[in-house]
Formats: sequence, structure tokens, C-alpha cells
Amino acid sequence: MLKSIILFSFLVGCALALGPAVLATKGAVWPKPQAEEKTQDYYTILPHGFNFKVPDNVGCPNFLNDALTRYWTIIATAGSKVSQNSWTRFQADGNFLGTLQTLNIDLEAGCESEDIYPKEGDSENYTLVVDAQGATLSASTIWGVLRGLETFSQLIYVEQDSLIINGTTITDGPRFTYRGLLIDTSRHFEPLTIIFAMLDAMAYNKFNVFHWHIVDDHSFPYKSRTYPELSDEGAYHPFSKIYEQSDVARVIEYARLRGIRVIPEFDTPGHTSSWGASHPELLTACYSNNEPNGNFGPMDPTKNSTYDFVTQLFTEIVDVFPDNYFHIGGDEVDFTCWQNNPDVGTFMGENNIATYKELESFYIQHVVDILDNLESQYLVWEEVFVNGVVLPNSTVVHVWKNNGLTTLRSVVQAGKRAVYSSCWYLSDLQSGGDWNGFYKCEPVALIDDEAELDLVVGGEACMWGEYVNEFSIVPRVWPRASAVAERLWSDREVTDVNDAARRLEEHTCRMNKRGIAAQPPNGPGFCP
Amino acid sequence: MLKSIILFSFLVGCALALGPAVLATKGAVWPKPQAEEKTQDYYTILPHGFNFKVPDNVGCPNFLNDALTRYWTIIATAGSKVSQNSWTRFQADGNFLGTLQTLNIDLEAGCESEDIYPKEGDSENYTLVVDAQGATLSASTIWGVLRGLETFSQLIYVEQDSLIINGTTITDGPRFTYRGLLIDTSRHFEPLTIIFAMLDAMAYNKFNVFHWHIVDDHSFPYKSRTYPELSDEGAYHPFSKIYEQSDVARVIEYARLRGIRVIPEFDTPGHTSSWGASHPELLTACYSNNEPNGNFGPMDPTKNSTYDFVTQLFTEIVDVFPDNYFHIGGDEVDFTCWQNNPDVGTFMGENNIATYKELESFYIQHVVDILDNLESQYLVWEEVFVNGVVLPNSTVVHVWKNNGLTTLRSVVQAGKRAVYSSCWYLSDLQSGGDWNGFYKCEPVALIDDEAELDLVVGGEACMWGEYVNEFSIVPRVWPRASAVAERLWSDREVTDVNDAARRLEEHTCRMNKRGIAAQPPNGPGFCP
Repeated sequence: MLKSIILFSFLVGCALALGPAVLATKGAVWPKPQAEEKTQDYYTILPHGFNFKVPDNVGCPNFLNDALTRYWTIIATAGSKVSQNSWTRFQADGNFLGTLQTLNIDLEAGCESEDIYPKEGDSENYTLVVDAQGATLSASTIWGVLRGLETFSQLIYVEQDSLIINGTTITDGPRFTYRGLLIDTSRHFEPLTIIFAMLDAMAYNKFNVFHWHIVDDHSFPYKSRTYPELSDEGAYHPFSKIYEQSDVARVIEYARLRGIRVIPEFDTPGHTSSWGASHPELLTACYSNNEPNGNFGPMDPTKNSTYDFVTQLFTEIVDVFPDNYFHIGGDEVDFTCWQNNPDVGTFMGENNIATYKELESFYIQHVVDILDNLESQYLVWEEVFVNGVVLPNSTVVHVWKNNGLTTLRSVVQAGKRAVYSSCWYLSDLQSGGDWNGFYKCEPVALIDDEAELDLVVGGEACMWGEYVNEFSIVPRVWPRASAVAERLWSDREVTDVNDAARRLEEHTCRMNKRGIAAQPPNGPGFCP
Repeated sequence: MLKSIILFSFLVGCALALGPAVLATKGAVWPKPQAEEKTQDYYTILPHGFNFKVPDNVGCPNFLNDALTRYWTIIATAGSKVSQNSWTRFQADGNFLGTLQTLNIDLEAGCESEDIYPKEGDSENYTLVVDAQGATLSASTIWGVLRGLETFSQLIYVEQDSLIINGTTITDGPRFTYRGLLIDTSRHFEPLTIIFAMLDAMAYNKFNVFHWHIVDDHSFPYKSRTYPELSDEGAYHPFSKIYEQSDVARVIEYARLRGIRVIPEFDTPGHTSSWGASHPELLTACYSNNEPNGNFGPMDPTKNSTYDFVTQLFTEIVDVFPDNYFHIGGDEVDFTCWQNNPDVGTFMGENNIATYKELESFYIQHVVDILDNLESQYLVWEEVFVNGVVLPNSTVVHVWKNNGLTTLRSVVQAGKRAVYSSCWYLSDLQSGGDWNGFYKCEPVALIDDEAELDLVVGGEACMWGEYVNEFSIVPRVWPRASAVAERLWSDREVTDVNDAARRLEEHTCRMNKRGIAAQPPNGPGFCP
């Protein structure tokens, strides 16, 4: 009675559908490493008899210890039901290398400080060797160590009642330096526990940017220290549905310890209705029949007080969020209220502004200047570029609309940097396991020039919050966003959907095992 | 940056999107009662100062006490943050009726026994009156009391810091007597806690049939006492992913106490791969090049041993499940292996069976005879009817394919009873809040004749399990299935989607509050 097509039925026997639709791999890595060789040799691991050997004088022992504790726990938990003596039965096998007791960590260049924060362009490369001499993870940065630890943890699998790791040589690093996930906490508020779970899952998928679309039209959950009234009046609830300064600090720290940048977005001049709950003077009054009708449109670009307010707020934001990038939005500005507000018309006449697009650019140019003065760099949605705002080359243009491949090419041909999202809207649903569409999307399909390719810094999966709440966001995102993670990390030639399906089946169960409420990717099945 | 259409944006102000997309009702009932009048008068309720007054000699005091305990807890929890003294501020208001301390329950015909089990056609009607004289719930059956208690609990809402119930007169009862939800525990195993949560949510939506699609091709989680090897070999895991007899009994009891029938489905002759894990002789061996190729098709209809096995198993099932209906499947039979197995060809020749459809009917006719001998009634998927199997008029034909409205009409025109599901496949996803499509579907749009209308016993929402696991099934089903619940309970003229959206917004928060992880129905919003 199932009408929907079983996408992977071609992978199972023709008539006997017993068991899972897709056979999961064992010990396969997601996202797929750049270069990986495995041998038939293998170790067993005694979960509670395993340790890490760390460099002396690493520079950030607490940071590293936090990571090693996480991964020690993951490994111990993977093997919690494993018999400590089971390895003895392997001893007659010529491929059996014995018990692996130690992962040696070689952090070549040390770690500058406990406060180290990930920056765009920081190396995440690592090498991992498991052979008869033991196991060694080498990286030049602490971020490479984090990525290598994740890979190491994924190589371990359960075979009968033993934890096994095969002889393996991996040389790895990301294809794109910016691999983001957008979470929208304005349309529905997401509690901190959910954000922490999402950051955990991001680390399991080697994402490195949390784009926090923290406020929007519907609510303003960020509790500003400069303007607390913004959330007092503009949040869904002034106490229970806000992010206190201490909450924001915890999110940033939780992410940092996983090598994830937190880029906040305070989108203007549209998407700001919630700002108007406490500061209606910031918004453009809408008119009907030459009188204000009580509604409000985008930010009012005609008043100096608007820019003064934005300067004060953004000065705070740049201080609160350590990332050197800030997403300033600039998308989907509805011109209706600019058109019917007579003061806006007068202002445009006085300032020789002929069109509403020019007025939008006038506004954004002011915001860009504010950020330049704050020595912050910024991302903008593609409209800002398309409308011709003068932008420094450090700007990252976030491409999201249809025909994104063409827009992306225009951006890099203009010498600007770009992040791509057009095909990775997780709010777009298909029946069945719909990760394939995300997986098959190649962001630079239209770009050949090497210098232009270098300007594509990466991509981002977007989970807009209209139709997800705290009960549904985790299974909605995972493992669908995992498809984007592999596209952004792995080599461009990694496009085998059948191979990906088998690894994603394992990876989804891996996430489930680690407490991430991911939904099934491939049809019928179960986690062992 | 949101590409998907905001379905309900027409409900909010043109330019100011602040706050939820749809304003929730307060104290509105889902599904909408047949007749409801509310007044401006109102009581407050002191949550812990509230009680029920129950009939003497009710006949099933424990059953009733279980229900009253549930609803007392729901009411007390709704008001757990409510000030006990807040009602004093209402005293000056002429509409204020005081504090409602008691709901009187008038169970007119008593309750036959503690073991009472819901049957098709049992009355679920009730009347509920809240006026200056107090509050009274009247029903002729215990099922009506359950439905009325649910309604009563939904009438109560929080206003400022008080629990309020308005003066209300409701006369209510279902449009259709069969209002089902299918859960598939074969494609993914669902733990008991999830099934209990689903049954709770069903009660909150006045569903009354849990169609348990318990086994299928991919796994056989039912632990048979006659043939335990079926799950030993055919479940995803022989201990952790099965339903013991005691588990099944708990599900039936949990459902019974909520007025929900449990109808098991053991689908044959297709969808039986998992049976073959322990009993391959039940299945038709597939041939290639005149030799068995190791694969297996549907049940082997040519052997007496097949029917003997089915008789033994179904004798057990009819004993284990108290419902007088049993879903025997009969859908989607793949004829390939019947076609290439030479023994099947010989059998057909000897028995003058000309087509594979006839052979399928031959098989089903045997199963139908088995059930008739067991004095059990049954549902069948529509293929069984379409293929011309001789069926008694007690049979319910389950219509699920496209063109279902036409098929449904054919079924009732042939004098058979019918349940409709074609437009209520919860596995079919649309971006955004897609409950509207389910809501707008009118099952008897093509049927005018009164006697034929009477043969449509109801409908069923189907949650096929290919793409949902224990982490995603609850938000996938709720509140989408709620749309089906209202279509099947409320009057045919209840079709106002905007009104439904506001009530569903409240109802979803109500479910969340009661521990059901429902997803948001209508776009941006929050639960108070």
C-alpha cells in the first residue's frame, strides 16, 4: 500500500526485500576523506583500555583535553557492550595486529593559546595513520586535530562483540574553507539544548560555520545589553524565549571547542518587524490615503537616528561575537511602504535617489560603512551585490535565489567572494529520502577559472524556521544536511550516490548512537 | 531569504509580520463538535481544587477512574502556574460565574464491565453543558464519556494567570464510526513508548482505530507464541526489536482505556519476505533459466501447507487481538515469481486457473475462509475487491490507490463497506504546512445515495514507515493527522481552512503541552 517510490529499491534483491533497504558500511568516514587507503590488517580496541598520547607544551591543554574527553567517551560508549576479552579469538588470524591502546597526536605547530578561535582560511588538514607501528594523528593546527579525531572515531566499528579499527592511511582536508549551517531562531525559538545538539551534529559532519539567523520579523530573541527592550518587547516571551548574554557566550564557547565559527546575522533593512515592537521609530511608517495606517515597513533609511541606533547595536554585536565576519542581511526588502510614505519621497528627491533599489543601496552603504569603521568584515545576501552596493573585496556575497549558479559566477567574476546556498534549503521537502538532491548539487558547475574558483569560499545549508520547532528541527536537518557537508568537504569527484547511501546509512546510525535524533535516509532499516 | 511560500501570510498584517503567523484560538475544540454554543459567561477553575462527580454503580469504576485521573492531571498541569487566588479579580464582572469545582458525569446506560472493549458502531455521542448551574457531561456509553472528557479538557484555557472555561453547550458525536491511524512497525521498528505517545495523541484527536501494520517484507517484529521463529529470524533484532506478547497486551489495554480499537494487519500473500527468514517454504521460489535462483516471491498459493500455517497463525492472532476485525492485506502482489515458477504453472493448469489475478483470488479466498471459520471479520486492501474475490458484506474494503473516490463509489455500489485512505498518506510530503491538503479531502464527494453513504464506515491516515524512525515519527504525524481527525469526526460542512488554522495552532500547542512532539502547522509562532 505504499504509493511513494522507494528510492533505493534497486539496491536490494529483486524479490526478497527482507532487511534494510541499504546495507550500511562499517567504519566508513563521512564526509569522505580526500585520500584514504585501508588494509585487511586490524586492531581491536578495548574501550576502557584506550588512551591518547598528547604533545608536551601544546599551548592549549584544556582545549585539547576537552576534545579528547569527548572522543574518549564516544569510543568508550561505542564499545560499552563489547567483551573485554573477545580479542583473544582473533589471535590466530594473520591480519590481527593486537590491541590498539594509544592514538598518538602530533600537533606540529602547537596551539597558540587556550582562547584560540577558528578563522576562515585556518588549516583543517590532518593525516591519520593506523599501521603495525600503532596509530598517529598529525596536524599543523588544533582544528586539524579536531577533524582527525572525528575521523578516527568514525573508523572504529563493532564486529560481532569487538571494537575494530582497520589499518588505514588518510590524508585529508576540506575542499571549501566555509561549510555552514543556518539555524533560524526567530520564526520559532530554539532552546539552548537544541542548539548544542546541532553543534554536536555539525562537528560529526565537519561543518565549521554556525550561521545564527538570530532575529527576524517574527521575534527578536537576542537580549541586547545596549537595547534590552528589543527582546523585552520583540521576543515571543521576554524571559523564556530569549538568549541572554550568558547563553550567547555558551553557544560561542561550545562551538569554538568544536572548531565551529559562530556568525550572527542581524538582517536589515527588511526582516525587522520585531525591532519595531520597542522602536517603531526605526521603521518606515506605511501610509494609506496620505495618512499613516499603523503598519510599518523596512527600516527608515531617511533618518540619521536609524543609523545611530544601528551603529550602537552593531558595535555591541561585533564585541559579543568574536568572529571577524558578521552577516548583515540585506535581502527581500519590500518597497511598498517606502513608496507610499511621503517623507521617503521627499528625502529621495533631496538626495537625488531615483529608485527604491538605489534607496536600499543607500541604506546598505551606510551599514557597510558602520561595519568598516568597526573593522568587521561581513556577509550580505545576494541582493546587495546585484543592486550594486560598493563592497570591499573582503565581503562575502551569500547566493540563495534560483539561478544561483549563474549569480555565483557573476559574483566571482566581479572579484567578490561568495558562499552558495541556492540548492541547500532544508525547508524544501520531497517525499522519501531527499538528501540525494542536496548531494548532487555542484556549486561551481559553471566556473572554470582557477582564480574565480578560489573566490567561492564555500556553501551553507539553510534551515529556515517557519515550519520547524524544537521537536522537529533535529530530524528535519539530519542527515539531510550531511549531504551538504560531504559536498563541501570532499573532493569534487566524490559523487557516487550509491556509495554515499551506504555510508550515510552508517553515519545516521552513528549520529543516533551519539544522541542526535536523525531521521532515516534510505528507507527501511534499523541501527544495530 | 525564505523561498518557500508562507501559506498563511494572508492572515497577518500586510507589512508587520511580528508575532505568530496565525493567531491561536483559546479554548476551541479539535475536532470541531457537531453543535456548540458558547456564552460570554465564564468560570475560573482552581486546578487542584477541581473534581469529578461520577455515577454510582457505574459498572466499570476502574476504567472510569483511569480516564478521570488522566484528565484531572491534564487540567491540573494546564494550570500549574496559575495563581489560586487570581479569580478574586473577576468578582466585579457580571459574566463571572465563580469557581467551577465539579464536572458531573451522567453515564446514562451505565457501563457493562471493566473489560469493555470498543466495537464498531458503539455510540461515542455526548452532551456537555457548562452554565450557571454547573457543568455536566452526559453520554449513553463510556466511549461518549471519554470523548466528552477530551472536549471538556480542551474548553479550558489560560487567560492572564487564570484557568477559564466559558459557558458552553455542546451536542456532539462523530460523522464516521471508523477513524483510524495506520502505524507501520516493520519498515522501522517503533518502541512501545512511541506507540503509547501515538495512542495518547490519537485520543486527543478522537481517533478510535489503531491500524497496526505490524509486519511486512522488511521485518517481522511480532513475537508469535505459535511460531516464535518468525521474529527470531525475521525481526531486525530478535530481542530488542520485537513486540512480546506482553507488549502487545499492553498496547491493546492502553488503547482500550482510551476508546481505541487495535486492528492488526498480517498482510499476505505479498509483503511477506520476512516470514521467509524462518519459513522459506511458505514463499514461492523464484526461477531463472528453469532453476531456483535463491530469491522468493509471494506466499506459495499451491501448497496445502501454506494454508495450514496461515490457519495456525491467524487462529493465534484472532485470539490475541480482541477486536472483531482483522486486516488481512492482499495488496501489491508481484506476480513475477508465480510466472517463472514451473510448479505454479502446473498447479494453475490442474485447477483451471487462467490468470495470476485469479490465482491471487484463489489464495485470498482461502484466507477469507480461514477467517470466516474463526468467526472474525476482516478488512482487505482494495485489490481484493477489484480482483473479484467473493466477500461477505461484513468485509471492509480499504481504498488506498489513486482515483480512490471512484473506487470508493464502486465498493459501496457493490454493497460492500469501505474505509478511505487515498488522500491521507502522511508519507507524502509538501514543503511548508501541508495539513491543508489532508483537510480539504472529502471522502464521499462522489457518493449521493444515503444507503451507499452508510457503507462508508470511515477513513484512515497512513504513516508508512520507510522514512520515519522513532526520532521523527511523532512530529511527522502530528498535527498533520489532526486534519484527518477533524474531517472524519466533524460535520461535512466544516471546511473553513482559516478557522481550522487558528484552532489547529492552539491544538498543536495543546499537544506539545501534553508531551506530544508535534511540529508547527502554520508557520512562525510559539506556544504560550
